[in-house]
Amino acid sequence: MKTDMTIKEQTKLMKLESSKMAAMSLEVRNNALKAVADELIAKKEEIIRANEEDLKKAEEDGLQKSVLKRLKFNEEKINGVVEGINDLINLTDPLGKVQMKRELDEGLLLIRESCPIGVIGVIFESRPDAMVQISTLCIKSGNCAILKGGSEAMNTNRVVFNIIYNAAVNAGLPKNCMMQIEAREDITAILDCHESVDLLIPRGSNAFVQYIMSNTKIPVMGHADGICHIYADKDADIEKAVKIIIDSKTQYTAVCNATETLLVHEDILEKLMPVLNEAFKTKNVEVRGTQKIRNIIDCEQATEEDFATEYLDLIISVKSVNNIDEAIEHINRYGSHHTDCIITEDDKAAEYFMQNVDSAGVYKNCSTRFADGYRYGFGAEVGISTGKLHARGPVGLEGLCTYKYKLYGDGHIVDDYAAGRKKFHFKDEQI
Amino acid sequence: MKTDMTIKEQTKLMKLESSKMAAMSLEVRNNALKAVADELIAKKEEIIRANEEDLKKAEEDGLQKSVLKRLKFNEEKINGVVEGINDLINLTDPLGKVQMKRELDEGLLLIRESCPIGVIGVIFESRPDAMVQISTLCIKSGNCAILKGGSEAMNTNRVVFNIIYNAAVNAGLPKNCMMQIEAREDITAILDCHESVDLLIPRGSNAFVQYIMSNTKIPVMGHADGICHIYADKDADIEKAVKIIIDSKTQYTAVCNATETLLVHEDILEKLMPVLNEAFKTKNVEVRGTQKIRNIIDCEQATEEDFATEYLDLIISVKSVNNIDEAIEHINRYGSHHTDCIITEDDKAAEYFMQNVDSAGVYKNCSTRFADGYRYGFGAEVGISTGKLHARGPVGLEGLCTYKYKLYGDGHIVDDYAAGRKKFHFKDEQI
Repeated sequence: MKTDMTIKEQTKLMKLESSKMAAMSLEVRNNALKAVADELIAKKEEIIRANEEDLKKAEEDGLQKSVLKRLKFNEEKINGVVEGINDLINLTDPLGKVQMKRELDEGLLLIRESCPIGVIGVIFESRPDAMVQISTLCIKSGNCAILKGGSEAMNTNRVVFNIIYNAAVNAGLPKNCMMQIEAREDITAILDCHESVDLLIPRGSNAFVQYIMSNTKIPVMGHADGICHIYADKDADIEKAVKIIIDSKTQYTAVCNATETLLVHEDILEKLMPVLNEAFKTKNVEVRGTQKIRNIIDCEQATEEDFATEYLDLIISVKSVNNIDEAIEHINRYGSHHTDCIITEDDKAAEYFMQNVDSAGVYKNCSTRFADGYRYGFGAEVGISTGKLHARGPVGLEGLCTYKYKLYGDGHIVDDYAAGRKKFHFKDEQI
Repeated sequence: MKTDMTIKEQTKLMKLESSKMAAMSLEVRNNALKAVADELIAKKEEIIRANEEDLKKAEEDGLQKSVLKRLKFNEEKINGVVEGINDLINLTDPLGKVQMKRELDEGLLLIRESCPIGVIGVIFESRPDAMVQISTLCIKSGNCAILKGGSEAMNTNRVVFNIIYNAAVNAGLPKNCMMQIEAREDITAILDCHESVDLLIPRGSNAFVQYIMSNTKIPVMGHADGICHIYADKDADIEKAVKIIIDSKTQYTAVCNATETLLVHEDILEKLMPVLNEAFKTKNVEVRGTQKIRNIIDCEQATEEDFATEYLDLIISVKSVNNIDEAIEHINRYGSHHTDCIITEDDKAAEYFMQNVDSAGVYKNCSTRFADGYRYGFGAEVGISTGKLHARGPVGLEGLCTYKYKLYGDGHIVDDYAAGRKKFHFKDEQI
């Protein structure tokens, strides 16, 4: 795209071209994806060189090892994202899906059909694979995309974006189908573009997502916090409980679907806590418990604040509850409506919990870490939504689409119905 | 509900009870609706008396006839809303609908199921029937509701709300399932309740909806403007065109789905405009046209501002366009993404228009006035959304629902998949 234009002008152009992008056939969109995959492989070395620059700079800046690990974009990771693109090509078209077909009256046919949202801005962290995943999800779903990656990956992102952009446009996508922004001021400029940008998806820290939400009229899809719970019911299988709790807490701590709080039915405290505590010790998990927990195991006192904290670390708060209702109330009050799990062998208790916990994911006997677009079979995800509007939970292709109503008539007017000369008959066709 | 609590305390209580409301069986919800219908009939006279007070006050205040007409809630209108409740009882349950059923791996089953949004605040105009329609839609969809009607209908609304509330709670719905607010300050208080209120639906003037959107973190569903277009294509049938344009413009002018701008392909200007102008004259429609229009008929000059104006009156702006692309571009630029129609006998042109116009409703050969929940067969509507997130177009029961993911495992942990000991197999079950 021309760079002598302001961000606002560029997004306006994009908005105008978004209906062309929406009209691209599945064949053109898949060909573009194929071209992107081919070019990423062909230009692998160029990407790796750029990534090495970013890594060098990051090391010089003394960034944490975990950041360096995520920043690294080597041959293996490139092959990984290309595999992801091939999976995406094989997914069915999310566009033009007929969701409803209803004859309102003789010759008056209403059809609801899926279509792209339009122009989507995504702000994401310093993982170069995120640039590939998000841009290709937008291509497959016919959306124009504004992409802002983390500044630590600047060189890599620039090279990767150019490869994707050129491959996509050469394959026939509109010139303004995507754009990259790099500067922080550009984010501020985007926040003001509510007339051209249909949706913002910020990924990153809680504070950052809240900042975005408070400073724009553009609808925002994202999650503010990930305070996930496990409730070990009185009929929990202790062995399963330990296995699931350890996985949910320790398999990867720095993510939103890791468990932060454990609620234990008081009837099983003595059976569960000692053995669980041994498992926590081998994984270096710090436990903060309420008094009844501390009566059984040696641990720090949990405060009110602990239950409202997303640790993203090897720390877990543990509370004893008298019954399932107390667990549900605690989760609905302190949780972030992300993902919460019950461990029980009692199916009725499980259904009751899953009905009453007000979260995007309600689980029975499995790790909260399953809350993820890839693990749900969505191909990839652009984020996880804890809001209730539009998309909830992991957001894949479907969450990047909306729908429109098409009404086909033959001179039909409302006055005929208002005056009683005609009547609607509402016949739904099977779809 | 107790009245010695602040609005914030009341909405918090409502939020806590919203999971109970969500768990109400279809039978209990339908029984509550039946009880509401019965009580409205039984207490008809009490309602009419209260309404007469409102009407008297409105007359004294010199309110317009059209306002008085909408404010009036007589036996006929009461019977009408009761009929609407009976239709609503017969609609299938919007809750617990399985939208996806996928086995991720042996014994690991993912189910996506519809559920209520939670706590919804609706601010609506001075039509007492709106109070009944909105509250009953919320009951059927298992949502807790905060209801604020127009102040002109205060006495009627108070009586009607009490009848509905008592009938609903006596039928078994939770005590905090709905509440009425009356004062303007109470709206301000609600805007600050983003921790307990999941969705706001403001109905009313453009300025009012914009005010709400700019002053809350709560997601807002509503439309800011209704600038609907009709494009008369070069292959339009003139007779149909006149009939549809007159209906769209004049059948009811004070509503968002009335047409405000007509775009005419230059090839049919001479055929269409003179006969259309005669029809406009009989309906007292004022025409504001571009120069090419004024070369054919006698009318005012249309300005840039006209094309961005929602008249809600017997005024129409008319523009000549060179081709269908110019029409589409005009609509996407000046329109409000509400409802836009093409008049043509050329199916390909119709499909092209309907694909490329970025609106909630894209119509062929029928009046824009059809954009309405009742006419779409939704029973009733809580509003029409011109946003693209969540619900688009007329919003009925489905738009008041979200979904949750239920994941059933038997000790499944993510580490088994991360380490390659197990693999997902993603088998979708037909639903």
